[in-house]
Amino acid sequence: MDTVSTTRLRTDIEANAEFGRVDVDDGRGRTVLAGTDANRDARDYFVTRLQAADMDVTIDAVGNVVGRWVPASADPDAAPIASGSHLDSVPHGGIFDGPLGVYAALEAVRALQDAAVELARPVHVVCFTEEEGQRFGNGLVGSSVATGRSSVAETLSYTDESGVTFEEEFERIGYRGTGSIDASEWSAWIELHVEQGTRLEDAGAAVGIVSDIAGITHCYADVIGHADHAGSTPMADRTDALAAASELVLDVESDARRSVTDGSQTAVGTVGSLDVSPNATNVIPGDARLGIDIRDVDDASIESLVSDLEASARRIEADRDVEVRIERPYMVPPAPMAERCRSGLRTAAETADIPALELHSGAAHDTMNVARVTDAGLLFAPSADGISHNPLEWTDWSDCAAATAVLAGAIKNIET
Amino acid sequence: MDTVSTTRLRTDIEANAEFGRVDVDDGRGRTVLAGTDANRDARDYFVTRLQAADMDVTIDAVGNVVGRWVPASADPDAAPIASGSHLDSVPHGGIFDGPLGVYAALEAVRALQDAAVELARPVHVVCFTEEEGQRFGNGLVGSSVATGRSSVAETLSYTDESGVTFEEEFERIGYRGTGSIDASEWSAWIELHVEQGTRLEDAGAAVGIVSDIAGITHCYADVIGHADHAGSTPMADRTDALAAASELVLDVESDARRSVTDGSQTAVGTVGSLDVSPNATNVIPGDARLGIDIRDVDDASIESLVSDLEASARRIEADRDVEVRIERPYMVPPAPMAERCRSGLRTAAETADIPALELHSGAAHDTMNVARVTDAGLLFAPSADGISHNPLEWTDWSDCAAATAVLAGAIKNIET
Repeated sequence: MDTVSTTRLRTDIEANAEFGRVDVDDGRGRTVLAGTDANRDARDYFVTRLQAADMDVTIDAVGNVVGRWVPASADPDAAPIASGSHLDSVPHGGIFDGPLGVYAALEAVRALQDAAVELARPVHVVCFTEEEGQRFGNGLVGSSVATGRSSVAETLSYTDESGVTFEEEFERIGYRGTGSIDASEWSAWIELHVEQGTRLEDAGAAVGIVSDIAGITHCYADVIGHADHAGSTPMADRTDALAAASELVLDVESDARRSVTDGSQTAVGTVGSLDVSPNATNVIPGDARLGIDIRDVDDASIESLVSDLEASARRIEADRDVEVRIERPYMVPPAPMAERCRSGLRTAAETADIPALELHSGAAHDTMNVARVTDAGLLFAPSADGISHNPLEWTDWSDCAAATAVLAGAIKNIET
Repeated sequence: MDTVSTTRLRTDIEANAEFGRVDVDDGRGRTVLAGTDANRDARDYFVTRLQAADMDVTIDAVGNVVGRWVPASADPDAAPIASGSHLDSVPHGGIFDGPLGVYAALEAVRALQDAAVELARPVHVVCFTEEEGQRFGNGLVGSSVATGRSSVAETLSYTDESGVTFEEEFERIGYRGTGSIDASEWSAWIELHVEQGTRLEDAGAAVGIVSDIAGITHCYADVIGHADHAGSTPMADRTDALAAASELVLDVESDARRSVTDGSQTAVGTVGSLDVSPNATNVIPGDARLGIDIRDVDDASIESLVSDLEASARRIEADRDVEVRIERPYMVPPAPMAERCRSGLRTAAETADIPALELHSGAAHDTMNVARVTDAGLLFAPSADGISHNPLEWTDWSDCAAATAVLAGAIKNIET
C-alpha cells in the first residue's frame, strides 16, 4: 500500500516509547506493566490517535481497546476485519514488541483511508490488555477474555505481587470499561509482530508469513535423591539429585536436537529452571526441580518429546536410584494460521514486491487465542540480531513500513 | 577403662538433648545455634557438670569453655592433654554430633578419677564455640581462635543474618569471657566424634581411628551463555548456560569416580549448589553458578581434580561457545593425625578388646585446626545408617561407652 507513511508510523511508535521509558546506554527501553500510570499514558495517547483517524473507540471490561472504522463503502453490519497487538511490555523491554502491531494496524487504516480503497467490511484496530503476563495472570490476558478462554470476573480478580487487583488498577487508570469484545464476531484477524528471532534476517526477507504457532507444554520434574555430607559420603554411596537432574537436562536438549535432525525441524525443548535443595556447596543435593518447556507446530511431535522425557526419567531412576516425578500442568495446542489470511498476506507481499518468508512462530501471541475462534494470520517483521525483551530490540523503520504495507494490503485482500 | 559409666554418659547427653529440643515423629532433634538461649542453657549445664567433677572452669573471649583437672599425681605446670568437641548444632540436628565428644571427654576424666589412674599431666575438657558455622562465621569458629587462624576481634565482629554481632550475643548469654585458649600449649588433643558415614557399621567396628582429615577446596564456576526465548530460538542457535553447567556437574562426578577407581580412593567431588538465571521455565538459561566441593587426604589428588575441573571448563567452552569462569576462594590442606595419638588410641582399643578400624575423615572437625599447632587425634563412633545433621542421627549407648573407654585409655597412653 503506497500510502503507508513511515513518518506517521514512526512518530506514533516513538511517542509511545516515551511512556515508561527507561534510560539505557544502548538502545531504547521501556517498562509498561499492565494497569500502571505508564500503561494509562500509552492508552490515552492511543485513543487520541484512533479518534484522529475518525474511529469510534470502545473499552471493554478488561481494558481491551477497540477503534472502529466503518468505510463509506462498507456494510456497517458486516463482520469486521480486525488487527492489532498489545501496548504492555516486559520490564526493561523494547519499543517494538507489541506497539509495532498496534500502530501498524492504525497506520494501515490511515493508508487505506488515504488511498480511498473501497472496503465492504468495517475495520477494527485492537489493543489487547496484558499480553506479557508480567503483572496480572499468565499472559495473553485480554485475548483470553475476547476469545472466551477466561471470564471477565476471573480476570478482574487477578492480583499482582503486592496484592492489588486487576479491577482496582484498571478502575484507577480509567480503563475498566464494560462488556467484552468477542473475537468470534470478527470475519478475520491479522497481527503484525516482531519476529524475536533471526530467520528473516538470515534469509534477507522483509516480512515473515506465519504458517503455524507452535503448541506449548510445560512439564515439571522433581528429582528425589538423598542429601548427604559432601565430605564423609564416598562417591559409591551417593544418590545425588543434581547429578541425576543434569542427565535429564542434557537428555531434553539431545532429544529436541535429534527431533530437529530426524523428525520435526521446528521442535524445541528447554530446561529453563532448576532449583536445588539444600543448595549448599558442601552438601550433596537431595532434591532438584526442573521446569521444562517443549514446543512444536504439531501435537504428535510434542507428545513424542514428552514420551522421550518420561523414558529418560525412567532410565535415570534405574541408573541412579533416584525417584523422578513428572507433572504436566500446562498444554496449549498448536495453532495453524488460516489459509485465507496466509494467502492474503502472500498476495499483498507479492503485489508490493516485498520479499516474504513462510515460517512458523515458536513464541505464543494473542493471535494464538484468536485463531481458536476465527480466521487468523500472523505477520513478522525482522528483529535485528533476533533480540527482544531488551532495550536493544530493533526493527528498521523501513522494515516496519514494509510490513505495514503488507498488512494493509492483506486487510483488503481478505475481506471477501 | 572399666570405670567408664554408660549411665553417667547417657544422662549427660540426654540432659543436653533437651536444650533446643525439636519435636519430631522419629528420632530426637535439637536446634542449638551459637549464642542462642538454647546454647546458653547447654553451656550452663556443661559448666555445672565440669564443676561437679572437681574441674576449674574458664571461658575465653569467644566463649570456648575449658574444664581443667589437675590430678594429684600431675605436675600442674606440665602441658595438658586436651579433649572435647562442640555443643552447637545445625538446625534440626541430632543429639550426638558434638555433645558425644564433649561429654565423653568429661566421662573419661571421671573414669580416670574413679580408677585412680596416676597421670603426670593436667587434663582439659573443651567445648569449642560455633563448630557448625550455622549462625556466625564459616564453621570451626572457636578452634580457629584457639589455634591462631582467626583473631578474637574478627570473631567478635561476626554478624548473623539479622545483623546481631557475635559479641552482643555472647555478652547477652554470659559467655563473653576473657583471653583466648591457646591450643599450641597443649601436649596433645583427641576428639571423639560420630562418623557421619557407614564405614564402621559396614566393617562391624566399634570405633574408628582416623589417619588423616581430608583437605577441602571450594571452587565456584560461573557459566555465561545467552538468555533467549525458549520458543523462538531454534535448537541450533542456543548458548544454553544450564545445559553447559549440566555437563560440568557430570564431569565433576565422573572425575572423582575415576580417581576412586584409578587414583586416590578417598577422593570426593560434589557440585552442591547450582543457581540458574533467569530461572524461568520459558527462557533459555543465560547464566549458571555452580558451587563445587573437592576433598582428599593428599594435596596432589585435590590439585589433580581441580585440574580436571579446569580442563572440563575449557572443553565445554570450546564445545558450546559459553564462557566458564572458575574461582577458588577456599582451600584447607589435609591434616594428618599425629602418630602419637593414633598409636595411643590403637593401644587403648587393643587393651580393651574393642574392634577398631583405621580410616580417614572426609568431614572437617575442630581437630583439623588443632592438628596445625599440636599433636592431634580423632576417634569415630559408629553412626547408624551413616545419618547425621538429622533427628535420625543415632549411636548406640554401648558404642558411645566403648568409644569413651578408648578415649580414656588413650589420654593415659599419650601423656608421655
